[in-house]
Amino acid sequence: MEQVERIGVSLDKKLLSMFDKLIANQGYQNRSEAIRDLIREQLSGERVGNPKAKAVAAVLLVYDHHSTKVMERLIGVQHSHVLQTISSIHVHLDEHNCLEVIVLRGCVCEINKMAEKMVSLKGVKLGRINLIATETA
Amino acid sequence: MEQVERIGVSLDKKLLSMFDKLIANQGYQNRSEAIRDLIREQLSGERVGNPKAKAVAAVLLVYDHHSTKVMERLIGVQHSHVLQTISSIHVHLDEHNCLEVIVLRGCVCEINKMAEKMVSLKGVKLGRINLIATETA
Amino acid sequence: MEQVERIGVSLDKKLLSMFDKLIANQGYQNRSEAIRDLIREQLSGERVGNPKAKAVAAVLLVYDHHSTKVMERLIGVQHSHVLQTISSIHVHLDEHNCLEVIVLRGCVCEINKMAEKMVSLKGVKLGRINLIATETA
Amino acid sequence: MEQVERIGVSLDKKLLSMFDKLIANQGYQNRSEAIRDLIREQLSGERVGNPKAKAVAAVLLVYDHHSTKVMERLIGVQHSHVLQTISSIHVHLDEHNCLEVIVLRGCVCEINKMAEKMVSLKGVKLGRINLIATETA
Repeated sequence: MEQVERIGVSLDKKLLSMFDKLIANQGYQNRSEAIRDLIREQLSGERVGNPKAKAVAAVLLVYDHHSTKVMERLIGVQHSHVLQTISSIHVHLDEHNCLEVIVLRGCVCEINKMAEKMVSLKGVKLGRINLIATETA
Repeated sequence: MEQVERIGVSLDKKLLSMFDKLIANQGYQNRSEAIRDLIREQLSGERVGNPKAKAVAAVLLVYDHHSTKVMERLIGVQHSHVLQTISSIHVHLDEHNCLEVIVLRGCVCEINKMAEKMVSLKGVKLGRINLIATETA
Repeated sequence: MEQVERIGVSLDKKLLSMFDKLIANQGYQNRSEAIRDLIREQLSGERVGNPKAKAVAAVLLVYDHHSTKVMERLIGVQHSHVLQTISSIHVHLDEHNCLEVIVLRGCVCEINKMAEKMVSLKGVKLGRINLIATETA
Repeated sequence: MEQVERIGVSLDKKLLSMFDKLIANQGYQNRSEAIRDLIREQLSGERVGNPKAKAVAAVLLVYDHHSTKVMERLIGVQHSHVLQTISSIHVHLDEHNCLEVIVLRGCVCEINKMAEKMVSLKGVKLGRINLIATETA
């Protein structure tokens, strides 16, 4: 079991009331939950700036599946890297385009290198890399 | 078949040589491919700023699966929204934490609303929303 | 005088200790200060997403002052807009390049429109827009 | 004089027409200008990821000038760092709040360290760091 601590935070009434309104809109049940999320987000952001930090990532790729060999090449990149490709989702967007979401795990710099290779493949139209650092409490 | 056009771009030698070096590192085979990707990226960025634009999104969530009812609540949010959840991946990160990647499709504002609900759920520790606008050539 | 309120936040020991370490590195004297900043940052981020919100912005522009008429055109854009240009800084970067930082005030959409005009001027090599929403407590 | 080169880029008609529409809205006079800006932006983004790269930065700070000693402390930080503070703008936002835009020059990591110190000062409500790498052609 994780040990829970309770800390006090002082802030002015106006700031607090704006925050309460915002987090109610977002669906939070209470302030502690919302503040914990802000803290975790900041910690994760810091870690992702460190090339050696461990992370998981979702790489989003849009490509034309008619474009010969894109899928072949994507698989090639995944096999030529030491990084573990955990899993992937393939979605048909329209007649031409597919979305592939590939979940990777490893250190930040390895993930970025492999993801860049995939994004730059001929036939891949759009790519986005999304990292989350994993040693989060 | 899509019709291809060829345009001329003038730029100074030094800028061109730095660009060539960068895209070689990223793995691009030629400049056209790299420039097309820059253009698509910019167009997608513009579209995503429009709340009514159609998009696909990957929502990344890290949560503690011991935390009772997180998964139940996640499913609840997915069912209470008009948005189509296309698919999802579930990954075990460690003893406590799971990563869930949920692919959504719909308009930008609906995706954001639903994703915020999921991120703010009690038990969800980290959340990230990644949108790609879909009407890309 | 602003009225100050004190709230309690519960979070687990490990998360708290990582947060304490991070904010000590950043130079914060206490947690309340750091948490208030996180909250203000999030509120500002939300507001900036609203095209009608009031904001101040710093527009950074790098341009070659040998390129004829860039400065003239920059002034032209500033005069042709209803937006108030509050002030600007001009810095010589090297033999060719200048940095100009222009502080604007107005609603988010007007700021973006005017900033885009300046960034797209012939001779402007790099541009960056940085918005802060102003109705912050 | 910088030497100009002309390269050919092939892209499909639909993508080109969307790009033309976007850049016309932004105010670009021609495609070369817009594509050069995309390229410079990407190069600058790459460089800023390197802690040792040279950069200029605008640090935006919002603070309450009634809060005793904020300005004193800000000056203190500026003097205790090796970094050159080039210049700054001070703007009165309302009865309580000031915006200060401070232009710094140095390597990416030094800029970030000094900017973090200023953002974390007691009395500083909001801070934003905006970096541009300077060795741009």
